[in-house]
Amino acid sequence: MRKIINPSQEQWAELVKRPAKNLEELEAGILETFKQVRERGDAALLELAKKYDGVQLEQLLVTQEEITAAEASLTVELKEAILQAYSNIQVFHTHQAEPMHQIETMPGVTCWRKSVAIEKVGLYIPGGTAPLFSTLLMLGVPARIAGCRELVLCTPPSKDGTVHPAILYTASLLGVTRVVKAGGAQAIAAMAYGTQSVPAVYKIFGPGNQYVTVAKQLVSKAGVAIDLPAGPSEVLVIADESANPAFVAADLLSQAEHGPDSQVVLLTNSEVFLDRVEAELEAQLAVLPREDFASKALGNSLGLVFDSIAEMLDFSNLYAPEHLILSILNFEEALDSIVNAGSVFLGNYSPESAGDYASGTNHTLPTNGYARAYSGVSLDSFVKKITFQHITPEGLQNIGGTIETMAAAEGLEAHKNAVSIRLKEVNRV
Amino acid sequence: MRKIINPSQEQWAELVKRPAKNLEELEAGILETFKQVRERGDAALLELAKKYDGVQLEQLLVTQEEITAAEASLTVELKEAILQAYSNIQVFHTHQAEPMHQIETMPGVTCWRKSVAIEKVGLYIPGGTAPLFSTLLMLGVPARIAGCRELVLCTPPSKDGTVHPAILYTASLLGVTRVVKAGGAQAIAAMAYGTQSVPAVYKIFGPGNQYVTVAKQLVSKAGVAIDLPAGPSEVLVIADESANPAFVAADLLSQAEHGPDSQVVLLTNSEVFLDRVEAELEAQLAVLPREDFASKALGNSLGLVFDSIAEMLDFSNLYAPEHLILSILNFEEALDSIVNAGSVFLGNYSPESAGDYASGTNHTLPTNGYARAYSGVSLDSFVKKITFQHITPEGLQNIGGTIETMAAAEGLEAHKNAVSIRLKEVNRV
Repeated sequence: MRKIINPSQEQWAELVKRPAKNLEELEAGILETFKQVRERGDAALLELAKKYDGVQLEQLLVTQEEITAAEASLTVELKEAILQAYSNIQVFHTHQAEPMHQIETMPGVTCWRKSVAIEKVGLYIPGGTAPLFSTLLMLGVPARIAGCRELVLCTPPSKDGTVHPAILYTASLLGVTRVVKAGGAQAIAAMAYGTQSVPAVYKIFGPGNQYVTVAKQLVSKAGVAIDLPAGPSEVLVIADESANPAFVAADLLSQAEHGPDSQVVLLTNSEVFLDRVEAELEAQLAVLPREDFASKALGNSLGLVFDSIAEMLDFSNLYAPEHLILSILNFEEALDSIVNAGSVFLGNYSPESAGDYASGTNHTLPTNGYARAYSGVSLDSFVKKITFQHITPEGLQNIGGTIETMAAAEGLEAHKNAVSIRLKEVNRV
Repeated sequence: MRKIINPSQEQWAELVKRPAKNLEELEAGILETFKQVRERGDAALLELAKKYDGVQLEQLLVTQEEITAAEASLTVELKEAILQAYSNIQVFHTHQAEPMHQIETMPGVTCWRKSVAIEKVGLYIPGGTAPLFSTLLMLGVPARIAGCRELVLCTPPSKDGTVHPAILYTASLLGVTRVVKAGGAQAIAAMAYGTQSVPAVYKIFGPGNQYVTVAKQLVSKAGVAIDLPAGPSEVLVIADESANPAFVAADLLSQAEHGPDSQVVLLTNSEVFLDRVEAELEAQLAVLPREDFASKALGNSLGLVFDSIAEMLDFSNLYAPEHLILSILNFEEALDSIVNAGSVFLGNYSPESAGDYASGTNHTLPTNGYARAYSGVSLDSFVKKITFQHITPEGLQNIGGTIETMAAAEGLEAHKNAVSIRLKEVNRV
């Protein structure tokens, strides 16, 4: 952990920078993958599964038998945990639905907006070291609440052609329309352009490696919406002496274990506290199965000592962390000062893991400073908000002159005429 | 107008296609402009204003004197129209604010989300044939309601170095922090990266030509958020025999006058009606000042005859129009069938112009079929929704086991430990 006492304002801009990654050299290869998938569809997906996932699949779509077997293979404890998390995520996201208000902005001029589900969405769940069924919940539950008609899941198969049973069980709970054994850029291409087995979708969600990241950027340029720009996961903890160094160390490690490029930042007003956290980090790290990832991430981590909570909040706002933990005595007083953050965890008993899995908030959040302008995934991410208006003849008499004057001032006479021609009719009657 | 009677389902996919534009060849030149602005800041902006706008500016920022003069130069009628539109837009967008609900997803586990303004936003208003002060209202009013701290406006100067007085008057009403005389890709670069006069912003809004479009794509790849992907404006009208052919023609023309690439589509269940609209189009077109634009756009327009309203709605959903006008007798019955559209205008007295200027709804809307996944600009576009959670020791006892089980199943032991270490402490007391 890089330790700095009272960094100067000049240093701040440097300290909040994330490591930049240039992925442009991947684009050509990924565009070639896109071409394969667009031209040959399922055949290309099967070929690429052999090449990249090392498995000769018999078919791309997961069968009902596989799902039934997956369900039978999970422990009751895990199934209950998944159901509990599902329930909490559902409760929290259901409250995000916007009620419809009809608003009469002027007499006879009524406007409203209505949330309508995006019809077809695609979810990508990576394979690799951790089977992220929690991410599937975080994306699938709001998709279900929104009412998305088609829910496609792509996830890479293991070498034996299977998908992790917890992912299949969760997919089945969510009523995912199709589970496709496809990973990487080819999965993104399949969902963007469609193949024989994979319907083309309008928006693609989910995390992934750098190939998936670039593939999502490329399809988004081509008009398919995506959830969020990607970046390594991160946590910033603000702790005062009321915090528990062991808890803080555990939180930092839970971020660090994601991968060597995870961003971990601790702000505190006590150098003694910082030292105690460092001692705890060392002790807890030693027994972690993913020690290798975590210790690499800690190597790039920051421990900063400031004079005041206010300064720490300023720094945090400039950093705009994905996860912000406030382990300070008077966290209520800090709430109004939080301007840029993805999700905020308050007090000593609200670990980031709670939001990662089960408290109800979403864990798909803006990284890399994007929290300055982006929100995390929510029910909003799965709907369009369509506006409507109805104007009566009297309403048009009320508002018509305003429109005519403005349209004329912008030099758009046909816009003006669409009102004038109607007013003439209304006034004639 | 290209006329087709009962197009087959096979034809639909072709008919809903928008003309594709490949702007990639512009990227190199725009990246060079970015480099100039990043390296030389204001000096580059002044130089590029000379090169592209044909004016040697004395300074980039609009002065208070210019604003005062602008206000004095406008007619009372126009100022009142702008104020009326401002008021209606404000009323409608104020209702989009989300109330904060604290939700206890389990006993002791409380979650909520809060809308927080994006601190710094940039608005781009193009120059050219129409001074779009209406767009400035559509972007500035929700920015103000959200509480954005810094509101920067870039707009290209005319050859005499001035900005249209209606734009300056509107900017002043909105309390825009800075009005910068800069246009094109250089304006987007200035707002994304900052110069001596232009603060770097977190999100950039507004329409523009192809250089602006590509520049916005490029900065969005670099992490600056943008409002919407761009495309030519479009209207789709569904009309039955209860509609007025003159009104429908006027609506089609108000779209067509935007530019030669505007998309204009009419669906009707009566060929006779279609012919009457075409006759009206010819008559009204002849007297339009922007006849040239409009007649080019009409050249590419579609007039389709279907058997039923249901089929027309299906086609419209596949097309996903930016603006949808329902000039049909029983429009209420159609409302639930509308799945993909930006903004919808109901009945014979709700012209698109109303929403373009003054009814209260936003006119910055998804074009090019993006309405399948994107919403128009709203108050949401100017805030981040940050989630918060507070868990009590008892709450952690309730939810802890669920988190531990899920984290272990994902192989993330440090995530599990962040809970276990706290539970040990809670259970010890």
